[in-house]
Amino acid sequence: MKAVEIAEPGGPEVLRVVERDIPRLGASDVLIRVSAAGVNRPDLLQREGKYPPPSGVTDIPGLEVSGVVVSVGSDVAWPRVGDSVMALVPGGGYAEYCAAPAGSCLRIPAGYSSIDAAAVPETFFTVWANVFESARLQPDETFLVHGGSSGIGTAAVQMVKALGGRPFATARGPRKCAAVEALGALRCIDSTTHDFVKEMKDLTEGRGVDVILDMLGGDCTQRNLQALAFEGRLVQIATLLGTRAEVNMGMIMQKRLTLTGSTLRSRPDFEKARIARAVADRVVPHMESGAIRPVIHMTFPLEAAGKAHTQLEEGNAVGKIVLIVG
Amino acid sequence: MKAVEIAEPGGPEVLRVVERDIPRLGASDVLIRVSAAGVNRPDLLQREGKYPPPSGVTDIPGLEVSGVVVSVGSDVAWPRVGDSVMALVPGGGYAEYCAAPAGSCLRIPAGYSSIDAAAVPETFFTVWANVFESARLQPDETFLVHGGSSGIGTAAVQMVKALGGRPFATARGPRKCAAVEALGALRCIDSTTHDFVKEMKDLTEGRGVDVILDMLGGDCTQRNLQALAFEGRLVQIATLLGTRAEVNMGMIMQKRLTLTGSTLRSRPDFEKARIARAVADRVVPHMESGAIRPVIHMTFPLEAAGKAHTQLEEGNAVGKIVLIVG
Repeated sequence: MKAVEIAEPGGPEVLRVVERDIPRLGASDVLIRVSAAGVNRPDLLQREGKYPPPSGVTDIPGLEVSGVVVSVGSDVAWPRVGDSVMALVPGGGYAEYCAAPAGSCLRIPAGYSSIDAAAVPETFFTVWANVFESARLQPDETFLVHGGSSGIGTAAVQMVKALGGRPFATARGPRKCAAVEALGALRCIDSTTHDFVKEMKDLTEGRGVDVILDMLGGDCTQRNLQALAFEGRLVQIATLLGTRAEVNMGMIMQKRLTLTGSTLRSRPDFEKARIARAVADRVVPHMESGAIRPVIHMTFPLEAAGKAHTQLEEGNAVGKIVLIVG
Repeated sequence: MKAVEIAEPGGPEVLRVVERDIPRLGASDVLIRVSAAGVNRPDLLQREGKYPPPSGVTDIPGLEVSGVVVSVGSDVAWPRVGDSVMALVPGGGYAEYCAAPAGSCLRIPAGYSSIDAAAVPETFFTVWANVFESARLQPDETFLVHGGSSGIGTAAVQMVKALGGRPFATARGPRKCAAVEALGALRCIDSTTHDFVKEMKDLTEGRGVDVILDMLGGDCTQRNLQALAFEGRLVQIATLLGTRAEVNMGMIMQKRLTLTGSTLRSRPDFEKARIARAVADRVVPHMESGAIRPVIHMTFPLEAAGKAHTQLEEGNAVGKIVLIVG
């Protein structure tokens, strides 16, 4: 099969198309003939050599795909051969065929193209697990996501709105902010001109925000704590500004804050399967009603994976970048 | 009535006995003729002017008492006049009479003296709310408390043991460590000679510890995160080493740690009442079976409150210091 591999750690130019064997299946896996594959920030880190795949996982990048099931392992009850699915995968999405644990597969929501579907698993599973499970966002609570125009941000704003929370976001510049507000953010704060700590206090009558989903870390961490309400929760899912953060433990005690975080890829299969079922039950209905739709910024053919990475790195995307495979 | 007031912010010498009016009761309060009053670290901070009482609360220090109810507000169904109780109070414990919200009162466990009872509310409510509610310690999980010989530490080790967890502690020096192990700690690490991060890894086959209750903060914070197991929880209840802490957000994500904290005094009455009921249901039975008994280091007459503070500040106590009032 055709696949994209990382020739050596480096820039987008190290991605190259090669011939690889079709993946072998475990008893609880399915083989998907890939229609489209989502591109995610962890793929960039993996390409740079900073985020190696877990042991036993293919070196081919790609964490989510859509496509048709062409064979199934001996323990698999669902999906069946011929089913169209979208799937979270531990790696190997940038290829014509990809193995996925059956539990990480979801049926494609009615009305979704294979491109839409390929943009769902990584971001929507991440937002579900962090915002609705870890941080337990409740109806009518306020929510802030940094990078509101990113794949995660556009998913989070729509999910929070659909599930009854009050979404806010930050983004860089008026074009992105307008796009995020069009998705349902009650306000998207332009971080190039405004201080989100002050703005969020003003927007919540001084209370602060209940849940923050953050991909920045570093110096943003203590400012997140400042922006949180009493009993507020900060959930960290990436650290684009660095892993080291100085925090005020007295503030954590006085406001009874909770600071937590996670990565999706390191979770065991049974947990990903649980998250998949929850997304199917709680989120897919809103996808089928049209309340939630993944935002696709641009598509590239598989052969242009390097260009797709360059596009994501430039930081101008609103929503997801997807590779069209077959 | 006789009471101890803080003449001005300062050392133990600023505590002086004065005459004050007996407190007036709200509709949901009871008046307790105080038998004994516990001395706690927040009392020292309040004396130094660093922890002012919440608005509307008496300036007289003292956060817990035992005694006999002598009058009740119009809305109070329990306790009744003549009942012996122990109570968490927002302030005013260092006095012959003290007002307490009815919901913060507990009956005195069978076999407990008034001195034992006065040593219960602040520490046991704090451990319950932080270790069993916030951090959700589960049976067979491992638990570490720093300052194992303190009032909080001695309460935490016994409660965790009685409720099915596996308690560990740190303390300074072999005398304190032996005392903490005699209370049920599976191991008390001497922090003057051993590194608790390494020790806790060794004691848990490399897994790390599930829940840490910490009163230190500062530089200890990141070491606490290092010592935690996957999905471990750090609960901060004081910051004796300082409020500023540098933490590694990447470690929080990779190990899916949770960092939280609280203060007891700032909680609203309805929450303190909920905690009191939980302690009555879940902890008092173990007090009556003898599995848990507050450790009393020393008692002083009310008039010697300054000496009691000096004793606590010297840091040699194992367990609680209690004032005998009447």
